[in-house]
Amino acid sequence: MYFQIIAQMKKQLAQLDKWLEATIANAELRKFDPNVLLTARLSPDQFAFARQVQITCDTAKLGASRVTGKDAPSHADTEATIAELRARVQSVISYLDGFAEKDFESVATRVVTQPRWEGKTMTGHDYFLEHVVPNFYFHLTTAYALLRHNGVPVGKRDFLGALTQKAPAT
Amino acid sequence: MYFQIIAQMKKQLAQLDKWLEATIANAELRKFDPNVLLTARLSPDQFAFARQVQITCDTAKLGASRVTGKDAPSHADTEATIAELRARVQSVISYLDGFAEKDFESVATRVVTQPRWEGKTMTGHDYFLEHVVPNFYFHLTTAYALLRHNGVPVGKRDFLGALTQKAPAT
Repeated sequence: MYFQIIAQMKKQLAQLDKWLEATIANAELRKFDPNVLLTARLSPDQFAFARQVQITCDTAKLGASRVTGKDAPSHADTEATIAELRARVQSVISYLDGFAEKDFESVATRVVTQPRWEGKTMTGHDYFLEHVVPNFYFHLTTAYALLRHNGVPVGKRDFLGALTQKAPAT
Repeated sequence: MYFQIIAQMKKQLAQLDKWLEATIANAELRKFDPNVLLTARLSPDQFAFARQVQITCDTAKLGASRVTGKDAPSHADTEATIAELRARVQSVISYLDGFAEKDFESVATRVVTQPRWEGKTMTGHDYFLEHVVPNFYFHLTTAYALLRHNGVPVGKRDFLGALTQKAPAT
């Protein structure tokens, strides 16, 4: 199921890209520079919008990389425009496109660590469910909340995207 | 893995309860009525804080109920205080405590629908990954964002809670 959760993250990243596109369109309509939003914050001691988007991308990218052992592309965190943030999102979607279900066969037994954990480790499984998924949605939703707070017209359906639904029997 | 994802939601609900507890403590310190936050919004056309907490609870409760076919307790959405919201969260944690891994054996083939879907259906699996998980984290994170926006001192570790980490070999 790890692979399917990654596929869902890929879908959510594509939705994020649509919100960024809607932000540019809305800024044109309301005649403001969309890039001022990169430094928008909900609280002075919380990361700004650009960082929220970058961490959303990194959580998906490094999550997939660490639980599979496949190298991830590096990103310099230098985005200064919404257009550059869109390119970052697209780059991670492309990276995730390169995974297949078989890449996730050893997640349960893989040992994951991070520099800031000072030698502590997690199993790939625990890391994925307790760290990657909550962090991914945390930063994704915070980015969304910042756009809503600033009047960008996105709604709940834009958050979820299209659902795999079956039409009623006729 | 559905059962383990539900266990993770239970953990996140316990974290939400801690944020609510911190909100009451912070209100005492700053000398404001914590219950004024129930109507706080990040945007005038987004649900207020109390509703975000209620939907977080309902998404976990109804998600588990619909993919397993087990009845869920009903809640009247009448909470008027932070203390009552805490009771709601605790009630859903107790409900989720009643599930066992075997309850989730038929999720993949179960057919799920909702009144608003006008007869359309989803498999339990698709519903869980595309609807329950993203919605749960969406409303949970929005509730957290509202507290942060209003100066309640919670941080990222309070969002994630304790991680299942192994100490380094000595």
